[in-house]
Amino acid sequence: MTYCLGILTKFGLVMAADSRTNAGVDYISTYQKLFDLSQPGERILLLCTSGNLSVTQGALTLLRQDLQSGAEVNLHTLPNFYEIARYIGEKLRQIQEQDRSWLQQDGIDATCTVILGGQIKGQEPELYMIYSQGNCIHATKDTPFLQIGETKYGKPILDRTLTFETPLEAAAKCALLSIDSTMKSNISVGPPISLVMYEINSFRIKHELRLRIGAPYLAQIRRHWEACLRQAFECMPEIEWEHALQDSNEDIPID
Amino acid sequence: MTYCLGILTKFGLVMAADSRTNAGVDYISTYQKLFDLSQPGERILLLCTSGNLSVTQGALTLLRQDLQSGAEVNLHTLPNFYEIARYIGEKLRQIQEQDRSWLQQDGIDATCTVILGGQIKGQEPELYMIYSQGNCIHATKDTPFLQIGETKYGKPILDRTLTFETPLEAAAKCALLSIDSTMKSNISVGPPISLVMYEINSFRIKHELRLRIGAPYLAQIRRHWEACLRQAFECMPEIEWEHALQDSNEDIPID
Repeated sequence: MTYCLGILTKFGLVMAADSRTNAGVDYISTYQKLFDLSQPGERILLLCTSGNLSVTQGALTLLRQDLQSGAEVNLHTLPNFYEIARYIGEKLRQIQEQDRSWLQQDGIDATCTVILGGQIKGQEPELYMIYSQGNCIHATKDTPFLQIGETKYGKPILDRTLTFETPLEAAAKCALLSIDSTMKSNISVGPPISLVMYEINSFRIKHELRLRIGAPYLAQIRRHWEACLRQAFECMPEIEWEHALQDSNEDIPID
Repeated sequence: MTYCLGILTKFGLVMAADSRTNAGVDYISTYQKLFDLSQPGERILLLCTSGNLSVTQGALTLLRQDLQSGAEVNLHTLPNFYEIARYIGEKLRQIQEQDRSWLQQDGIDATCTVILGGQIKGQEPELYMIYSQGNCIHATKDTPFLQIGETKYGKPILDRTLTFETPLEAAAKCALLSIDSTMKSNISVGPPISLVMYEINSFRIKHELRLRIGAPYLAQIRRHWEACLRQAFECMPEIEWEHALQDSNEDIPID
C-alpha cells in the first residue's frame, strides 16, 4: 500500500508521502510517490500517487512527455487546476484502457489515485484528488486535507488537529505524525517519508524533507509523541464507573 | 459498522464496544454489542460481536438456549476457552448455513466476528477472536489486544500505549480513547460506548460503564485529549528542513 496526504490551509500547502510499494508481502520496494512538476515562479504543481504502480508511472511518463515535447496541452499551459486535474485523469484513463483487460485476466487491480496540489499565478492555491476513473474532487475550507492509500490509521490525528487556519509548520508536523502513526500500525506503509511545504503566493517550494529509516528526527518525534501520549493518559480524568455487575449474569442493560 | 476491542493484561481484561448498526447510511440503529454471559464466582464470559446482525443475534440466541435448557454442552460446562471459542464458532456456522444462500442471492454479506474474553476458575484469563468461518485465534503477551469491525482508526493509540504490563484503569482509558477516535473519524461507529473491566482471579465484573451520547465524561476526555494533542504539537521539536527546491522543477531526488 501507500499513504499520501495533502493539506491546504490559508497559509499554503503541505504534501507528504511514504515510499513503500508492495506486490504481496514478499515483494516490497521503495518508490517515490511525491513528484514536483512545477514551473518555478509561474505555477506550483505537486503530485502524490497511490495504487497500481505501472498505471501511475505510465501516466507520469505521459505528463512529462507532453511537457518535454511542448505539446499544446500540458501541465504548464492549462489555465486552471480543474482542467489540470481532468487532464491528469485523462492520462490515468489512457493507461488503464491499454492495460485493464490484461490486468483483469489475472485478477490484478488496475486502480490508482492521485493528489494534486499547487497554485497558478493569479489564482488561489488548490488541492485536488483525481480518482482512477478520471473524475476529481477538491479540498475545501471545511475539510482542508485529502488522503490516498492506507488512510484510516492517520485520519484521527488530522481530524483532531487540522483546520484551514493551521500554520504551515504545524500542518507539516501533523502530516509527519499522521504518516508515522500509519507506519507504526501498518507494515505496508514505510519510509523514507517525503514532505514538501509551499507558502501561498511564493511560487517556490519553501521546504523539502526526506526522512530515511533511522533518521534521528523521525526517532525524535516518535519518542516525543509517545511520551506526550503517555503523559496525556496519566493526567486523564479518572473514569467514573457506574456499578459492578455483582453476582448477576444479566446482560449489560440496553438504554 | 462496529468497533469492539478486548484487552488482556497481567491484571485482567477490558472489553469495549460501540453501539451503532447500519444497513446502508439511511438505516442506522443502536444495538448492544457487548454481552456478559458469565457464571459469577465460577467463570467470566464476555462477548463482543461485529458483522451481520442477524447472524450474531441468532448465534447468541442459540448460546442462551443451550444455557437455559441445561444442554450437556454449553458455555458454562465446556472445560476451557479454546473449546468455548470453537463452540461459539459452531453456532456462527450453524446460522450461516441456514441463511447464506438466501443472503448471497441478494449480495448481502453474511460474515461476522466475535471477541470472547474471560476466565475459568483455576485457569488463566483468556482473550479469543472467533472468525465468521468458525476458526479462532487468541491474544498473546506480545499483542495484548484484539479488535473487530472498523479497527484501523483506533489502532495507532493501542499500538503506542498498550502492553501486557498496562494497569487496568489505563487500559480502560486507552479503550475509550480508541473508540472515541474511531467515532470522530467514522460515522458508522457511534455511542453509547459499553465498557467492562474484569480483575484477574476475582470472578466478578469489577466495573461497568455505558457512555451515552453527550455524556459529560465522554465530552471531558475528548476535550482533555484534544488539548493534550495540541500541546504535544506545540512542544514538538522543530522540523529540520533540508533545502528548498529553489528555481528547479526537478523531481524530488530518490535515495
